Amino acid sequence: MRQKQDLKDIYLHGLRDIYSAETQIIKALPKVIDAVTSKELKDALNRHLQETKQQAETVADIIAAHDEKPEGEHCKGMEGLLKEGMDIASEFEAGPTRDAALITACQKVEHYEISAYGSMRVFAKQLGFKDDVKALNSIFEEETNADMLMTEIAEGGLNAKADGEFASAGDRR
Amino acid sequence: MRQKQDLKDIYLHGLRDIYSAETQIIKALPKVIDAVTSKELKDALNRHLQETKQQAETVADIIAAHDEKPEGEHCKGMEGLLKEGMDIASEFEAGPTRDAALITACQKVEHYEISAYGSMRVFAKQLGFKDDVKALNSIFEEETNADMLMTEIAEGGLNAKADGEFASAGDRR
Repeated sequence: MRQKQDLKDIYLHGLRDIYSAETQIIKALPKVIDAVTSKELKDALNRHLQETKQQAETVADIIAAHDEKPEGEHCKGMEGLLKEGMDIASEFEAGPTRDAALITACQKVEHYEISAYGSMRVFAKQLGFKDDVKALNSIFEEETNADMLMTEIAEGGLNAKADGEFASAGDRR
Repeated sequence: MRQKQDLKDIYLHGLRDIYSAETQIIKALPKVIDAVTSKELKDALNRHLQETKQQAETVADIIAAHDEKPEGEHCKGMEGLLKEGMDIASEFEAGPTRDAALITACQKVEHYEISAYGSMRVFAKQLGFKDDVKALNSIFEEETNADMLMTEIAEGGLNAKADGEFASAGDRR
């Protein structure tokens, strides 16, 4: 067991965990981008990949401002979420149905981040780290927007396309 | 690779995944309840455990109404999230600081569920399963409320207590 910790310690622990999560996403997202067929979804994920790289740098900068290193944690939560996404990519055939399923996996990743940045923002506020609150808030907004965009793509036609993909095979419901 | 699937297939796949997630939570939550020291948090988690048991039954009923079995998937995402929570319980000493860290882990679990039920609700709507939409919507609301309650407990004094826990040791910021 570690030595007794204070709120700043668990804040930095949480930030390193997020840094690990973002780093894992940067590695995994290109595979998801390869797996999707919808151009709209591919473009949105490509933009989010660039955004994610910037977010990882921002988190590293926040940690460095507290004289700590960003490495040292492995985010098991993100590891599990990404495994789930990779399973979908390998178990289903390419097309609108798999795209719809991959969106659900991406949204779980987004929600992990919304929750993680939300918690860290609350800690930073309690600790009086005003610059951190501002930076974390800005990333929190980006993650929320990325999640909403995925919902828009799903509801804006992709799910209907996935639903209609086998219409010619008759109504199987 | 599985045979080509339609939206109903990935909907049922997603529901079985959620059933696995809820089942894993029902097993893990009592350990989290044992680990927390705040009575307010313990009570909230105990109520949520009862709610979770009901949610798992509801999901099993939804799946059964489509003549399918709820078992057969193992939710790797939830496995990772729960590992993360268990690590916090074993790595930190009991007290307000660990309670604050455990709340962040619980909120990640809640956000997984918010995302999962949100996606399934959208699929059910697309597929025209009105009874499913109603049931999923009701669980979605419960998960959202559970998440908000955790934020209230954290911001309502627990984080301040965690922050003040080592005040006597001097300001280490």
